[in-house]
Amino acid sequence: MKKYILGVDVGGTNIKLGVIDKTGSIISRSRLDTKSYIRSKNKLIEAVITEINDMFSSCNLKKSHFVGVGIGLPGLVDPINGIVKFLPNIPGWKNVPLKKIFEKQLFLPAYIENDVNMITLGEWKYGAGKGVSDMICLTLGTGVGSGLILDGKLYRGAGYAAGELGHIPLNEKGPQCGCKGYGCLESYVGNQRLQERAAKIFKRKQIVLEEVTDLAEQGNLRAKEFWQETASHIGNALTGVVNLLNPTRIVIGGGVSDAHKFLFKTIEKTIKNRAMKVQASMFKIVKAKLGGDGGIIGARVLVEDMKSLKRKKKE
Amino acid sequence: MKKYILGVDVGGTNIKLGVIDKTGSIISRSRLDTKSYIRSKNKLIEAVITEINDMFSSCNLKKSHFVGVGIGLPGLVDPINGIVKFLPNIPGWKNVPLKKIFEKQLFLPAYIENDVNMITLGEWKYGAGKGVSDMICLTLGTGVGSGLILDGKLYRGAGYAAGELGHIPLNEKGPQCGCKGYGCLESYVGNQRLQERAAKIFKRKQIVLEEVTDLAEQGNLRAKEFWQETASHIGNALTGVVNLLNPTRIVIGGGVSDAHKFLFKTIEKTIKNRAMKVQASMFKIVKAKLGGDGGIIGARVLVEDMKSLKRKKKE
Repeated sequence: MKKYILGVDVGGTNIKLGVIDKTGSIISRSRLDTKSYIRSKNKLIEAVITEINDMFSSCNLKKSHFVGVGIGLPGLVDPINGIVKFLPNIPGWKNVPLKKIFEKQLFLPAYIENDVNMITLGEWKYGAGKGVSDMICLTLGTGVGSGLILDGKLYRGAGYAAGELGHIPLNEKGPQCGCKGYGCLESYVGNQRLQERAAKIFKRKQIVLEEVTDLAEQGNLRAKEFWQETASHIGNALTGVVNLLNPTRIVIGGGVSDAHKFLFKTIEKTIKNRAMKVQASMFKIVKAKLGGDGGIIGARVLVEDMKSLKRKKKE
Repeated sequence: MKKYILGVDVGGTNIKLGVIDKTGSIISRSRLDTKSYIRSKNKLIEAVITEINDMFSSCNLKKSHFVGVGIGLPGLVDPINGIVKFLPNIPGWKNVPLKKIFEKQLFLPAYIENDVNMITLGEWKYGAGKGVSDMICLTLGTGVGSGLILDGKLYRGAGYAAGELGHIPLNEKGPQCGCKGYGCLESYVGNQRLQERAAKIFKRKQIVLEEVTDLAEQGNLRAKEFWQETASHIGNALTGVVNLLNPTRIVIGGGVSDAHKFLFKTIEKTIKNRAMKVQASMFKIVKAKLGGDGGIIGARVLVEDMKSLKRKKKE
């Protein structure tokens, strides 16, 4: 019986692969080094397909046990037509019909999606967003991204580019952002910006954020204030989103969210203080539950959703 | 044959009523003065029902010609259960089961909705948003509101409070807003705030916005700059919304939008300059087409949507 899904999460550093069972658990995993294949799109695809075939045999599972394959990619993806539009950090990927390529070589249904949307799907069905219909999944890392579950469905936007919560402007005359906009949330709380700010505060050439968290744990006031200020920026951006979308759940993940002990209360307080009464009374902030596995586990949700969409269209 | 819908648009000043045919045209209209009934919820309801019955007879139409009644109200409405949660500017309305009350007295299906959502539905199906799946409908008046069409459906939010685009913060340390937040778009471009700013600029005790528009028409530089600054605030707020929701259409209506000649180009330029590439390339800004009739005409869309929802649930 078909019951497994193979999830692939293509990141800038690693390509993570996993076999996911019906309960959303990963029963087998594997990993490739993205850098080894970054120069050639075809080599990357070939390596992933070889790895998938190896996983089939090492798990003692046949292809017929699999519903399909779900692949998450760090860039603009058209999941309906199965085309990777472009990947900003992996050169050579422009309008690649990846769904077709995978299906032709694997003889299994394949579906593709943006990586943050994949994490959002995973957290929604198997993680911190279980049971809710309106959820924001915010990922805090080098980039600040988000996925939106609205009315019990992933909302992708007209050009599949929705969810750029990191590029909501916090101030009209804010600093220029990498996206060419001004005052974007990411230009305040993106990893690099945070490290620069921390280095300045602690008068060091370099300081990693984990150390700032450790210092905060030890009661260091400047470290606590650093996270408080970061949280208040995030809370200000989320205030607009809460007023606009009226969600019940805000799931926060990504490396920076490891400092949740020093972030979440201030984020919540900021929104409760600034957002409108009804909206402010309805949301809950929760840490992402699936960690680095969200992208793989989300593949299960993607594949099932896309297959049911196809069924509905046939009816 | 059932083909007409009766639309009611309850506003702070007027209650507008209209009979809408299959093409979305109003074939008969009527109007009540809200102030005469503002002290008593029951009198207001009674007056509307009497007026509806009068319209039936004056149009030579029978009840059996009507699919149903759609009522828009200026406040928080639960359209699924048919309950008016509260109306901020009409006292005495709290948790009123208005759908039930109307259906009991009219012997026709009745549906209720927030007024801005009603305008959004009208513009989407019969106005400036025809044919698109992802649309923001912004209303610029005393308040700044919006309705969201996402994935070909009105998005209401978990507590039916979504769409508060007027309460997206423009600046972290902005002025306090009536909603208790800070730096909200409405606290920059709400009608009252604009009039105050205009009075200061033109060194007058009072000046209406129509006059500022007339001055701009005549080439007055300060008037043109006034509208440009207003447009740039609106554009900055919409930049975040465009990045987050990736719509293809932005419909702008409400009294302030009468100055569209001096607003729309700057709004569009601001978003194109600040928003992300894909999102910035996809949207179009259009003036609302239905004017003051949007709320009544939207009733047609609401009634049909709610009826088809009911049918689907039965299946």
